[in-house]
Amino acid sequence: MFYHVQSLINPIVADEPDPSAANALQEGLGGQFGEMRTMMQYLFQSFNFRGDGVPYLDLIQGVGIEEISHVELISKTISRLLDGAPEYNGKKFETPGAGGKATMDMAKEQQNPHHFIVGAQGSLPVDAAGNPWSGSYVHDHGNLVLNLMDNLVLESTGRLQKCRIYQMSENKTLRATVAFLIVRDEAHQAAFAKALETLGVDWGKILPVPKFDSSKFPEVKRLLDAGIHREQYHFRLDSSMMEKIYSGPSPFNDGTELVTLKEPRESYPIPMAPERPEEFAPGLDAELQEMADALADFKDKMLNPKSPPATKSATKAAPKKKS
Amino acid sequence: MFYHVQSLINPIVADEPDPSAANALQEGLGGQFGEMRTMMQYLFQSFNFRGDGVPYLDLIQGVGIEEISHVELISKTISRLLDGAPEYNGKKFETPGAGGKATMDMAKEQQNPHHFIVGAQGSLPVDAAGNPWSGSYVHDHGNLVLNLMDNLVLESTGRLQKCRIYQMSENKTLRATVAFLIVRDEAHQAAFAKALETLGVDWGKILPVPKFDSSKFPEVKRLLDAGIHREQYHFRLDSSMMEKIYSGPSPFNDGTELVTLKEPRESYPIPMAPERPEEFAPGLDAELQEMADALADFKDKMLNPKSPPATKSATKAAPKKKS
Amino acid sequence: MFYHVQSLINPIVADEPDPSAANALQEGLGGQFGEMRTMMQYLFQSFNFRGDGVPYLDLIQGVGIEEISHVELISKTISRLLDGAPEYNGKKFETPGAGGKATMDMAKEQQNPHHFIVGAQGSLPVDAAGNPWSGSYVHDHGNLVLNLMDNLVLESTGRLQKCRIYQMSENKTLRATVAFLIVRDEAHQAAFAKALETLGVDWGKILPVPKFDSSKFPEVKRLLDAGIHREQYHFRLDSSMMEKIYSGPSPFNDGTELVTLKEPRESYPIPMAPERPEEFAPGLDAELQEMADALADFKDKMLNPKSPPATKSATKAAPKKKS
Amino acid sequence: MFYHVQSLINPIVADEPDPSAANALQEGLGGQFGEMRTMMQYLFQSFNFRGDGVPYLDLIQGVGIEEISHVELISKTISRLLDGAPEYNGKKFETPGAGGKATMDMAKEQQNPHHFIVGAQGSLPVDAAGNPWSGSYVHDHGNLVLNLMDNLVLESTGRLQKCRIYQMSENKTLRATVAFLIVRDEAHQAAFAKALETLGVDWGKILPVPKFDSSKFPEVKRLLDAGIHREQYHFRLDSSMMEKIYSGPSPFNDGTELVTLKEPRESYPIPMAPERPEEFAPGLDAELQEMADALADFKDKMLNPKSPPATKSATKAAPKKKS
Amino acid sequence: MFYHVQSLINPIVADEPDPSAANALQEGLGGQFGEMRTMMQYLFQSFNFRGDGVPYLDLIQGVGIEEISHVELISKTISRLLDGAPEYNGKKFETPGAGGKATMDMAKEQQNPHHFIVGAQGSLPVDAAGNPWSGSYVHDHGNLVLNLMDNLVLESTGRLQKCRIYQMSENKTLRATVAFLIVRDEAHQAAFAKALETLGVDWGKILPVPKFDSSKFPEVKRLLDAGIHREQYHFRLDSSMMEKIYSGPSPFNDGTELVTLKEPRESYPIPMAPERPEEFAPGLDAELQEMADALADFKDKMLNPKSPPATKSATKAAPKKKS
Amino acid sequence: MFYHVQSLINPIVADEPDPSAANALQEGLGGQFGEMRTMMQYLFQSFNFRGDGVPYLDLIQGVGIEEISHVELISKTISRLLDGAPEYNGKKFETPGAGGKATMDMAKEQQNPHHFIVGAQGSLPVDAAGNPWSGSYVHDHGNLVLNLMDNLVLESTGRLQKCRIYQMSENKTLRATVAFLIVRDEAHQAAFAKALETLGVDWGKILPVPKFDSSKFPEVKRLLDAGIHREQYHFRLDSSMMEKIYSGPSPFNDGTELVTLKEPRESYPIPMAPERPEEFAPGLDAELQEMADALADFKDKMLNPKSPPATKSATKAAPKKKS
Repeated sequence: MFYHVQSLINPIVADEPDPSAANALQEGLGGQFGEMRTMMQYLFQSFNFRGDGVPYLDLIQGVGIEEISHVELISKTISRLLDGAPEYNGKKFETPGAGGKATMDMAKEQQNPHHFIVGAQGSLPVDAAGNPWSGSYVHDHGNLVLNLMDNLVLESTGRLQKCRIYQMSENKTLRATVAFLIVRDEAHQAAFAKALETLGVDWGKILPVPKFDSSKFPEVKRLLDAGIHREQYHFRLDSSMMEKIYSGPSPFNDGTELVTLKEPRESYPIPMAPERPEEFAPGLDAELQEMADALADFKDKMLNPKSPPATKSATKAAPKKKS
Repeated sequence: MFYHVQSLINPIVADEPDPSAANALQEGLGGQFGEMRTMMQYLFQSFNFRGDGVPYLDLIQGVGIEEISHVELISKTISRLLDGAPEYNGKKFETPGAGGKATMDMAKEQQNPHHFIVGAQGSLPVDAAGNPWSGSYVHDHGNLVLNLMDNLVLESTGRLQKCRIYQMSENKTLRATVAFLIVRDEAHQAAFAKALETLGVDWGKILPVPKFDSSKFPEVKRLLDAGIHREQYHFRLDSSMMEKIYSGPSPFNDGTELVTLKEPRESYPIPMAPERPEEFAPGLDAELQEMADALADFKDKMLNPKSPPATKSATKAAPKKKS
Repeated sequence: MFYHVQSLINPIVADEPDPSAANALQEGLGGQFGEMRTMMQYLFQSFNFRGDGVPYLDLIQGVGIEEISHVELISKTISRLLDGAPEYNGKKFETPGAGGKATMDMAKEQQNPHHFIVGAQGSLPVDAAGNPWSGSYVHDHGNLVLNLMDNLVLESTGRLQKCRIYQMSENKTLRATVAFLIVRDEAHQAAFAKALETLGVDWGKILPVPKFDSSKFPEVKRLLDAGIHREQYHFRLDSSMMEKIYSGPSPFNDGTELVTLKEPRESYPIPMAPERPEEFAPGLDAELQEMADALADFKDKMLNPKSPPATKSATKAAPKKKS
Repeated sequence: MFYHVQSLINPIVADEPDPSAANALQEGLGGQFGEMRTMMQYLFQSFNFRGDGVPYLDLIQGVGIEEISHVELISKTISRLLDGAPEYNGKKFETPGAGGKATMDMAKEQQNPHHFIVGAQGSLPVDAAGNPWSGSYVHDHGNLVLNLMDNLVLESTGRLQKCRIYQMSENKTLRATVAFLIVRDEAHQAAFAKALETLGVDWGKILPVPKFDSSKFPEVKRLLDAGIHREQYHFRLDSSMMEKIYSGPSPFNDGTELVTLKEPRESYPIPMAPERPEEFAPGLDAELQEMADALADFKDKMLNPKSPPATKSATKAAPKKKS
Repeated sequence: MFYHVQSLINPIVADEPDPSAANALQEGLGGQFGEMRTMMQYLFQSFNFRGDGVPYLDLIQGVGIEEISHVELISKTISRLLDGAPEYNGKKFETPGAGGKATMDMAKEQQNPHHFIVGAQGSLPVDAAGNPWSGSYVHDHGNLVLNLMDNLVLESTGRLQKCRIYQMSENKTLRATVAFLIVRDEAHQAAFAKALETLGVDWGKILPVPKFDSSKFPEVKRLLDAGIHREQYHFRLDSSMMEKIYSGPSPFNDGTELVTLKEPRESYPIPMAPERPEEFAPGLDAELQEMADALADFKDKMLNPKSPPATKSATKAAPKKKS
Repeated sequence: MFYHVQSLINPIVADEPDPSAANALQEGLGGQFGEMRTMMQYLFQSFNFRGDGVPYLDLIQGVGIEEISHVELISKTISRLLDGAPEYNGKKFETPGAGGKATMDMAKEQQNPHHFIVGAQGSLPVDAAGNPWSGSYVHDHGNLVLNLMDNLVLESTGRLQKCRIYQMSENKTLRATVAFLIVRDEAHQAAFAKALETLGVDWGKILPVPKFDSSKFPEVKRLLDAGIHREQYHFRLDSSMMEKIYSGPSPFNDGTELVTLKEPRESYPIPMAPERPEEFAPGLDAELQEMADALADFKDKMLNPKSPPATKSATKAAPKKKS
């Protein structure tokens, strides 16, 4: 059974909209090796798990739970990169197409016009070439060794593709999220490589994939310095045996140590996205808005939100907020 | 950010394996109107939400979080229905195909042979006709009114299809899960219908879809008597404004009242699935098993599990177990 | 612009339900070489037609209009073959699953369970293996010679597959429709072969495909005797130049003559399909039915229907009925 | 059974070619909520209709027949927007690539190069992201209430997406068609909302979706002034009970009245598209053209066409032309 | 550049037709981890290879060339398993459906009716659930380490699935081919594992996947005894550096040695498949057959065939035949 | 059984990188009528061939074998067109994104960003709109006449699309390959047209499609002058009866003669592609490279390659090299 806090696993950093950066990032969300796939692959492997290897189950499932939060993060990053794109470069407009002006003219020239026609400047469950995500991406072989190997290939590809996407844009919104995912994919490579190490494999020096010094990417370096490439979280409200595997020397044979935690040390507020009249989003005209407002005092609560600001620990008896 | 407890939202009831029942149930998991779609549709709508209508956001997202637990439940139900099918009807065998016997002969005649060739008698992200789930199923129109209407159609179709599947098998494992989903889909119809009611719609007597007395299905009746068709859970560890919408008279105009809770009143243990040697699942031979066992004392923990038995409330400061 | 009469191009012949025959016939509806494809291929070729070769346009478009009526015919045939299948072999039931009986137990063993879970014992836009129809089936090369050749291959494949389906069932409902389509596909082969003959090709003796004496199929023989394998209809309410091509000696070099008509010499009543409570179809409970009935006197009209019985000519000033 | 007149339901307005506008419009043709889907969805619902609710059948089927004419209109609009694009901006050329010049160089930079490689500057059965249309888009739940709700969501999405596309281009060819479709989608929303109103729903003020004053779009305003957003046509050559539903006060509760007609008050000539040598379309060299011309006197008829000029009523006893 | 000999890499063993065994085997041909995928994956990796690691290129490409012969073998095996299925169990017929008999009645009940409707009792490029093969199965990451890991996962899955299929049928035609592929997939696992070993990995005891004694399968044992699970062929007519990698101790750490050869030690005749009149295959009636025969003396050659009987070495200066 | 020489069937001509030209060319590789389809279609038709019409089998299979070499050629051409694109126009960079520079910024604006994110500036099994290749493209009707007609349509479409692509770019790398394929598609049209001619068809003047003087394309003219549009190769190491069909007067009725050869008169060296650090291709860091180098003397062999330079005849007893 699953739970949620309205917090992000990494902050959304502000920058200008950039629709083609948003489209490249779709690969990380809805691509064959993106977060939707990792999430569903690990959940299916967990739900169909056989035998009594609970530490292996808890490892796979724990990573899978994190991936839902990655889907959340990358989805919101794409949405932010698209948000307001028609007004980009100083263009402004107020009402949808009033007087017949083509206020979203730029939209039809973008990599994926669906971002503007189908979605309302939001993320889509598709890849960077516009192909919808497919259930055939999910591999659950029902064989523990093979699943671990497949997962290692998956995380390796994830990190490889994100390292390529990193080099495609200097947009800070994109970079903050991509850098975080590069680091987490390295932690997840460590998870599955370590699990195979417990069964006798010695990886030598081939990991992580790609093999290069990612601290050359400044946004990545800050995260490496904080050590989050060697942490794994289990996100379990009851308890987890993940640490039986995810601890001790890194399987990359580089002298580092793996650490299992319940959850990330920090979590971050979720920015509210503004209405976009040119997209008819959210679509409430004055009359309907009035009715929505009449949901008693909810606006009050908006002004005194209890929704989470940046928190140190997203959960506990009472989920603890960052002070 | 998402969390997990190793408990189910409804119990798995024991019965004989039934591969064709398992296949029919795949529609509820990976079908165009199944739980994978509801889960992803509501999460995308939440992550891309625009404007300050927080109660609407919390309603959509809260239902979405529940759907992840439905994916978990239905996946495990399918797995259970398939588990051991080749040995069904008194057939027994010990080692995979020893001496060349076709111990899984029945598998190639099943509705979806992938259950035995690709998976290891486990669930797949496909529908009852074997088509893989597609990202194109996810509708996020970016328009609040339209999203609510679309979600209502989705839940109505979910309940309709499950009422049909109910009539296709008397297997208790299938029935327990299907009956639960029929009831929850009714609760979700109420959620989206009520949200549209706050914007001025009066549904008259057309809901729920399909319009019939589902208490004629005995397994459903027990759940209706417990009132869970009028409850909605927000599954939030911080707080939720869902109740601003999901409370008061049912939008079905039938005199019932809606109730918002943090989580279901009960949760249930997750049964461990046995190894299946004929599927090479999990795939550890004696040598590898020994290494896996050498993960120190984890077998000890297996004998004294802290993993959740049936619990009343799956979470709280410390997730409270059922006593 | 398109018009309709509520008549069929060939009669639905009564027989027992047969779900696997229905599934085989899906190939003729939603298969890669089925009627949905012919319909869309010829319409796209017509809408995108270039140049002043109006007789060629009118030929392609005229066949395309007929194909919509084929989609109608085959869809209704499939629906009829499925209708009531759960009650087949003497089983009877009244209310959906009352008391928990698995009244649609047979449904989950059928070739495509979607016929019972997704549709209500009706046709689907899929092929006999359950794959949804795809826009990629439609070929419009924008080159007249190539389009005509492609269309000839399409009609040849259509006739070939239907000749195979004919041999798969003795069900009269299936046979009546399949036999008609075998004959019409031969007429359409003649259409495109003749068009290529006007550009200089001599087909020798290779046509029609498959090359065999289809009068061995008794249901086909009756239609051949009526000569409808050498007729083509233009279905145009204004006028058509189709006859410039579709007339004179058959391109099969067999001594027969081609004839262009406005429409088939006969049309046939469309049988009403009964409600199916186990499918919640149409889904009106007593309360809703009362409201539907309150649409004034429409029941009256039901009792004195003006909807078409078998008609000789489906259209004219006032569409003439068969006497 | 279906018929055709060689007329359009709305005129094609002349303007410069615009390939990216053409591509955006593909969403309205081959997109998940485009005209191919509405057409096939309503036809399947009609062909599989159960029960004696003939007014509901006639409403769904009548709208479905209109959608075929929408496919025709939008297909021809896209074709027109692409037609001659390689020569755009003053470039001219005569023979395909003579001397090796890259006369279609611009084509490979377009949103969907298939418009030039696969088609001959014509429409395709794909969406704005290049995905082929899929049979899985078609929803026929076999439950009347649910089908009506699904159809309402479909028309709402259609209007929403077209309002977005409207804002993406000032091209007059695109705008004329899009404006017409915005208005017709509103009429179709009224159709399905009204049908649900007969079963007891009161829509309050949430319709149409999107909720905004579309008369701000000048091309739309002209059509609203003509009242065609409150008309529905049945396109039946025999007779229809559509009016039992589509009449009386609009379900949008805005004081307007619905009107059922046999067909639109006007229809419009279909422009002939020129040959495009760089696409080898239609592909007849001099020798073949001579043979085509030898189809006797058909060129004569070309000079004295009986094909329809703008007509008031496209059909009648003898389809009446506008005088 | 590619060449061919009309010989098979493993013999087709005779047994009764078995359509459901044929369908299970489709997974090995057109499945996500089947031979079409291995073939295309290795060819794409070879054609896009970067850098000067020629031994790695020659290894990947060499395995890829073998996979084309596997596609040939498995395709012919499926075809053989289907061949004559309608006549199975003593049924006989001579002319297609003469007198209207449903001579292919069994066909519509089979796992994939396409084997009889679309193909003529031949193999299809689809998997065991009827899904067409997809280009998205092909992984070429452009990173050598990752490609080798991906290929290892691919071969492991191939062997796992074939071990499962082995247990699904005792049909000798199926078993001969499946046993051969189990053994070859083990050789290919060795190929990619060894390549990673040259880069520093020690696989311990986890390979091959699945980890079990496949000599328990009698048909497999014969091939293991012949040692072909430790051979790899380069199939190059010029020369290859494959042996730089594929030699020395097996990476499975089991004391065996790897051997590189030009080609298999034996090759086998390709059986001719008979005509099937009920499928209109090949489709030549008497008149056309006469023309085909008039291709001079080719029948003569049929009687004195130079087409290859079982050969020891399929190629050499002059391809040497087995004596 | 299949063999390979490391030579190309046509040379790769050097020119600047051009990613959009590469993308257009993808249609010829992974498009519905591209080389992957021709290859798989002819191989499936060969493997499933029925009856004793060996010359027809040898013709279809022989063309199929050539198509594998076309896949190789076009794949390498696309790779070459992409290679180094991020450095195009004078931009230079050394290490991947060092210091956070967006060195692949151009990549996200390209037609298919997958060329840079998923592949490493290499070809993909997709079409020019980014859709993955599908097994449903492969047509094997199991009827000889129909297969020949389908193949003729396929080759005609291939030539048509390549003639259009030719006009889209003056890039010499693209043109050399496209011109070759135009000419070979004409030879293949001749193959299937001639086979149908042996069964009695007279094609008059409609072939080849498209009907135009392709010698106006200078790169094509050179190949026509060499006569390779009237040659067909059987690529068989044993023997072939292809010549029984592919000889004598061209079926285009233009006075030319067809010639069957074992293989092309010349073959060409395969250029090695450089590493691309920004893509982490091949992905060996210094440490791994050292291990790879330690594969004994393979670098030596690199300096004294025995891999084929341009050869006259790629094979023979001992494959003959060009002198």
